[in-house]
Amino acid sequence: MPGVTDDNTSTAQPFRQLRVGIAGLGLMGGSLALALRGQVRLLHGLDRDAATRRRALREGVVDSAEAMLTAGSPPLDLLVLALPVRAIVQMLDNLPALRPAGCGVLDLGSAKRVVVAAMSALPEHFEAIGGHPLCGKETSGLAAASADLYRGQRFVLCPTARTTGAIRDRALALIEAIGARPILLDADEHDVILAATSHLPYVISATLMRSVVEKRQWSLSASGFRDVSRLAGGEPQVMLDILLTNRDELLAALARYRADLDFFQEALERGDERALAGWIAAAHAAHAAYRREGGIA
Amino acid sequence: MPGVTDDNTSTAQPFRQLRVGIAGLGLMGGSLALALRGQVRLLHGLDRDAATRRRALREGVVDSAEAMLTAGSPPLDLLVLALPVRAIVQMLDNLPALRPAGCGVLDLGSAKRVVVAAMSALPEHFEAIGGHPLCGKETSGLAAASADLYRGQRFVLCPTARTTGAIRDRALALIEAIGARPILLDADEHDVILAATSHLPYVISATLMRSVVEKRQWSLSASGFRDVSRLAGGEPQVMLDILLTNRDELLAALARYRADLDFFQEALERGDERALAGWIAAAHAAHAAYRREGGIA
Repeated sequence: MPGVTDDNTSTAQPFRQLRVGIAGLGLMGGSLALALRGQVRLLHGLDRDAATRRRALREGVVDSAEAMLTAGSPPLDLLVLALPVRAIVQMLDNLPALRPAGCGVLDLGSAKRVVVAAMSALPEHFEAIGGHPLCGKETSGLAAASADLYRGQRFVLCPTARTTGAIRDRALALIEAIGARPILLDADEHDVILAATSHLPYVISATLMRSVVEKRQWSLSASGFRDVSRLAGGEPQVMLDILLTNRDELLAALARYRADLDFFQEALERGDERALAGWIAAAHAAHAAYRREGGIA
Repeated sequence: MPGVTDDNTSTAQPFRQLRVGIAGLGLMGGSLALALRGQVRLLHGLDRDAATRRRALREGVVDSAEAMLTAGSPPLDLLVLALPVRAIVQMLDNLPALRPAGCGVLDLGSAKRVVVAAMSALPEHFEAIGGHPLCGKETSGLAAASADLYRGQRFVLCPTARTTGAIRDRALALIEAIGARPILLDADEHDVILAATSHLPYVISATLMRSVVEKRQWSLSASGFRDVSRLAGGEPQVMLDILLTNRDELLAALARYRADLDFFQEALERGDERALAGWIAAAHAAHAAYRREGGIA
């Protein structure tokens, strides 16, 4: 029967024998396929865009491709969902109908609570674990994909009610195969931290880019502006889904950010040199601590 | 008489014959000295820090060095002020007493209105032009200086009431000598634009860094966080002087930024998908336009 994975043998199945499906052949999914090329038995791509599928096949990124997962799709031992977060959740909701015998599932979404909830709601014969590789680019699509996107980067794994030892080991083997570094973390904790270190930075970066566009003020800008505004280039659908699915944590991080911006603004309005100097010194010390404690260069 | 520059001959004086003083041997002044090495007759450094002076002399960054400019300092054809903005203004105020015969002056400060005002108030036998090279680093000090910091970068020149053709040509020759690209711009316009593209980005970058320091949330961060928070590492005294001397324009830019952040936050609180999608799409389009229209890579 197509699509059957025998859970009792999955643990022992060597990584090289895996048939891996990747839903979404954009920057993340395409890079994953490139990184896994030659290391697994089958790479089967799923992407709604015909031009992307043609390109992926022509360049050998995947062995086979189709627009969407159906009951007639080839058997897959591991399905990796490299889609915007709400598309991941929707696919998880549809999965029991498409894979009645179950399969192994991993995702790459940047908000984990909603994904882990949807994975936990899968029937018991599914094995699923949430994933979030901490890497990306300000460009998107298969054309921007590269085999080394994940190399050396951290890859968060979030347990679900459907996380078995087998799926965890399989995810760890995949992370090793692409050269990334695994971190096991609770989804709630993940979403609180990533709101502060990724989702809020996107918002402030996009706000900055929006603030100069009317007058094209970037004509007089340098590397500082380039770096602080870089995240504004993030794929719109991906960003929209992250912001909406991690809304509460993002709003909390934004409130803290704005309270500190209030403090700064009031000190500047007063011309309060002492308060400003303290504020700046603390930011400078924080940056030094970040660099010292593992801030990536 | 030491310190005399004959204005009538200065135009004709070849660049290689210039005796150049650089006040401040930090990242900007040190890099300028390295870039000018071998291209002028004398490089004389002024820096209050004895260790910096020793290092600059030991490494041949300058030919001679002393703690501060005095009436007994060697004659200088061009004095470049590579100091925090308020220190530049203070030195300009003291200059008539130290160089009674006048001299050529250029500065490298990031806020130009106050500097241009102080230059314009110099006695008539001084020649002075405001300058702002659009480059930098998140590290500071002579140890971070490099001969190619200015190469290919834009270098704004702002006319003052003391700007003669001779000092403008001399500044242009210096800009050419260090491989930068000159832009002539009014100081008011400079300060409006730089508030939006440099000073505001510093503030939002520093606020972000401050917002994660308590819980060390950067332990789960990637290249996006690194880039958006990078400016928090700017030299504190340099940043304090910029914020205080370009306060009104920065507050105006901050007000526009916060109004847009209000819009975003309210849309997110309402879960207004359509408003958020439009906001994100406009940021994405702005980033693409920035890249297309000369955003530096």
